Amino acid sequence: MSSDIVTRELQQPITVVEYLYRRLHEVGVRSVHGVPGDYNLLALDYLPKCGLEWVGNCNELNAGYAADGYARVKGISAMITTFGVGELSAINAMAGAYSEFVPIVHIVGQPHTASQRDGMLLHHTLGNGNYNVFADMSEQVSCSVARLNDPLNAATLIDNAIRECWVQSRPVYIGLPTDMVLKKVEGKRLETPLDLNRKPNDPEKEEYVVNLVLRLLHEAKNPVILVDACAIRHRVLEEVHDLVQKSGLPTFVAPMGKGAVNETHPNYGGVYAGDGSNAGVREIVEGSDLILSIGAIKSDFNTAGFTYRIGQLNTIDFHSYLVRVRYSEYPGINMKGVLRKVIDRMGDLNVGKIPHVSNKLPKSEIDSKDQNITHAWLWPTVGQWLRENDIFITETGTANFGAWETRFPKGVTAINQILWGSIGYSVGACHGAALAAEDLKSNQRTVLFVGDGSFQLTAQEVSTMLRKKLKPIIFVICNDGYTIERYIHGWDASYNDIQPWKFVDIPAAFGGKAGEYQTHQIKTRKALLDLFANEDFSSNKCLQFVELYMPRDDAPLSLKSTAEASEKRNQSA
Amino acid sequence: MSSDIVTRELQQPITVVEYLYRRLHEVGVRSVHGVPGDYNLLALDYLPKCGLEWVGNCNELNAGYAADGYARVKGISAMITTFGVGELSAINAMAGAYSEFVPIVHIVGQPHTASQRDGMLLHHTLGNGNYNVFADMSEQVSCSVARLNDPLNAATLIDNAIRECWVQSRPVYIGLPTDMVLKKVEGKRLETPLDLNRKPNDPEKEEYVVNLVLRLLHEAKNPVILVDACAIRHRVLEEVHDLVQKSGLPTFVAPMGKGAVNETHPNYGGVYAGDGSNAGVREIVEGSDLILSIGAIKSDFNTAGFTYRIGQLNTIDFHSYLVRVRYSEYPGINMKGVLRKVIDRMGDLNVGKIPHVSNKLPKSEIDSKDQNITHAWLWPTVGQWLRENDIFITETGTANFGAWETRFPKGVTAINQILWGSIGYSVGACHGAALAAEDLKSNQRTVLFVGDGSFQLTAQEVSTMLRKKLKPIIFVICNDGYTIERYIHGWDASYNDIQPWKFVDIPAAFGGKAGEYQTHQIKTRKALLDLFANEDFSSNKCLQFVELYMPRDDAPLSLKSTAEASEKRNQSA
Repeated sequence: MSSDIVTRELQQPITVVEYLYRRLHEVGVRSVHGVPGDYNLLALDYLPKCGLEWVGNCNELNAGYAADGYARVKGISAMITTFGVGELSAINAMAGAYSEFVPIVHIVGQPHTASQRDGMLLHHTLGNGNYNVFADMSEQVSCSVARLNDPLNAATLIDNAIRECWVQSRPVYIGLPTDMVLKKVEGKRLETPLDLNRKPNDPEKEEYVVNLVLRLLHEAKNPVILVDACAIRHRVLEEVHDLVQKSGLPTFVAPMGKGAVNETHPNYGGVYAGDGSNAGVREIVEGSDLILSIGAIKSDFNTAGFTYRIGQLNTIDFHSYLVRVRYSEYPGINMKGVLRKVIDRMGDLNVGKIPHVSNKLPKSEIDSKDQNITHAWLWPTVGQWLRENDIFITETGTANFGAWETRFPKGVTAINQILWGSIGYSVGACHGAALAAEDLKSNQRTVLFVGDGSFQLTAQEVSTMLRKKLKPIIFVICNDGYTIERYIHGWDASYNDIQPWKFVDIPAAFGGKAGEYQTHQIKTRKALLDLFANEDFSSNKCLQFVELYMPRDDAPLSLKSTAEASEKRNQSA
Repeated sequence: MSSDIVTRELQQPITVVEYLYRRLHEVGVRSVHGVPGDYNLLALDYLPKCGLEWVGNCNELNAGYAADGYARVKGISAMITTFGVGELSAINAMAGAYSEFVPIVHIVGQPHTASQRDGMLLHHTLGNGNYNVFADMSEQVSCSVARLNDPLNAATLIDNAIRECWVQSRPVYIGLPTDMVLKKVEGKRLETPLDLNRKPNDPEKEEYVVNLVLRLLHEAKNPVILVDACAIRHRVLEEVHDLVQKSGLPTFVAPMGKGAVNETHPNYGGVYAGDGSNAGVREIVEGSDLILSIGAIKSDFNTAGFTYRIGQLNTIDFHSYLVRVRYSEYPGINMKGVLRKVIDRMGDLNVGKIPHVSNKLPKSEIDSKDQNITHAWLWPTVGQWLRENDIFITETGTANFGAWETRFPKGVTAINQILWGSIGYSVGACHGAALAAEDLKSNQRTVLFVGDGSFQLTAQEVSTMLRKKLKPIIFVICNDGYTIERYIHGWDASYNDIQPWKFVDIPAAFGGKAGEYQTHQIKTRKALLDLFANEDFSSNKCLQFVELYMPRDDAPLSLKSTAEASEKRNQSA
């Protein structure tokens, strides 16, 4: 049989690398992240020919974070690294994307298949002849691994990997040995686009679930909708929108679900996160007799330390792989089909009270004469300044928790890593997100809030932003170190201190030229309000870099309570 | 049996974390690298009490590189990261240390054992309840993994891990859950120091090998000694020194073996690396009828692209785990015992001609009127400026190959990553090495040569050097990007370009204060010679940061030929 395949003629021969790139282009990739290395250089030559642009990040971890940010805006992304050294530097970013359901195609340039077969003692190896070890590691944080060692199945493996990446919304790993780059595969396959749809639900089973959901929904006295991360990551936002609109039900988001619904919609009631909920939300959600929970990830930081008080008896969980009605599970049923039918057949429901959410300052802050920029003041104020369709990136730490108190305008894309929580992520993600907006020609603003400690991990990606002429608005929160950790443990411990950088001098040191960036030092509320009011600053003219001074000991309330719960769990006997 | 252990009384109760730290202190660790994270904070509290100082690197990959550099100077090192996000960011550094035989104790702060057991959905997890996945990955690049989940065996696991780390000279992984930190173990064990010796060779077998080696040695007409990396990493430098001294034989080093022998010794003949050898070396080594090859790692970059022309019939290979005489293998025989006996019983040998090695410039450079700083001129000139006991760090790329043409003064420690070759390594390693010298109070200079492209990967560790008041001398070779890669593939490709930084502005942007650092821009040979002659610059007064401009298209000859061989291998059909 294999000889049949060997001898068949290729109707439209195309190289493996071009086949791969054309598929990436087909699914929406335009910029490719990564760092050059000698096992991937030849492959890099072919990017321009396929309509792809090479980014050239400062290092691979940053490239991985950038690819993550890019995918969250553009739908999917790609990264190219080199064997061993490159791919391992990026593996934390891949793990984060796996954890948070972000589709990244990670292409790793590998040594020649003959060198691998012979176990040669090449650079970038462990010196033990084991050429599988790195791919094996990545397999743990990828939903599919394609080892392109044979042109006969290369195109099939590529198609499967990209499809799985999209459908499962998780990273895949493609190993591309140097000698495979220019091997020929059947280009005619490209005439058939990849099928990126999930397998439809079994109709009878789906119907059963839909009827059950509808029955409970009609019986419910005060049902609510609670939207979380997987609604975004598994692409049911249209269904969510229609559900909210048609049902008229009070709608809430978990912190990781922020951005999933239009927060200016009259049905929107705010963030539910147990003890960390927006004012007035807790009572309604926890008092509801039926919660339509869509795409939940009930992690510690997403629930303010597991402080949800909603019972499974009052919950219908919608997931991409399962629907759960109270305790009855329906595995293999994808929420998308179910939600659509529920919307279509819903009819009238009992609709309860919806709390009003706005970016009005809390009374304590309105009355305050304090000019210090506190978290209680900052985050609603940022919400007043945000614009429709902004990309709003918050680093793990005070910013991530603070954003719970920011009500978004319509169309805002929120980017954060509340589950994986790798500090430094947001700087790379900012680069990738801004580049994705550029590739989309959407003229969206990309706004980043990152702490001074976190910024130091990945600072050099500001260089890549400058090199690519991107125009994000970057706020570095200067509060003397790792504040979230102080709240967990070590309030005055020196290990939570950092070297004080002159942050505003960073863009120039990284080669930024006059006109490419502006810097600002902001220490008072008035100065920040003035800056926000400055159209030159607030429009997409050039990269904006702000040192934002905040008191060392201040943090959002939700962070304080979550940190306390974390420390209690860490220290229990 | 286990109930016996449970009920036994601890004579000198000590916490797990203190036990661990006291063992680290015992084997020579003084500074501990890493980044704080909420699963390791409690453990960090106990460092000062045990005589250990926390470093606090800017990120975990840099911390890993720093730990690697520290271990190469101080003998062993330790690093603490946090679960998932932290440890994965460092895994490339661990893989490099595994590949190049560097002993690093990697301690990972993990969630509470109860959270792990229950598969809780905590931050820094993949969200799938699998708490083993990261340790499983690290297992591939560690010679031992200790999971401290039970106080009953914790002390034993710690002792075993640190012992294996030292003896095998490779990284080990210690998982420390938050609830184990303060559990009690038997402190009385600390009265017995760890036994860090390898098991002695079987005496009869060793005797057999020694006699065989001696017989061949006496029969040989022109034997030579060839010393490589594992002589350093497996600690037989004393034996090597005595062998060289007593035998009088011509002695050569492989590139990774540089620093293993006193290069001012009259027996020293230079670097052997096949096509990349120092002048006159190749003929003698390849014409020898018996090569005593000590600790060889015959990787592509260490042999200028596999261009050794020495036959196994003329070779005796000495390793830590095996001696090979021609084709006869003696597994389980460690070179240390064999070498010592060979030295003791050697008697007179036939001694051939030894080429003279110096840092004299090649004639072409002496006669040149060129003021450009070329590689042919630079590396011998650097050799004239180096001092005894300097730590000399060269990044993968032009610097690593250039150093083959630098003859060292006595006692120089060379640090590089010729096998693993992860760019950016040297900046972290420089921090760790300088800190180790500080901990040794040795007043050694730490000198780094790093390319502009590589520097950008890990630049922020200059901040940690400033924070720790270290005084390395850093040369950033400014030659417009990834030169080694241009020589492999993509001469004018934009993917080998980088953003041009204002490198000399970096220390100030990273918070360096007046007096803590000096910067220099050097564009001519004369300027560099003047700088070298400046005692203020050349002594350990403060951190020195030099922009060293070199032509974009220039590279050491050895790099050119090695790169050519790499490209040929990558592209072969």
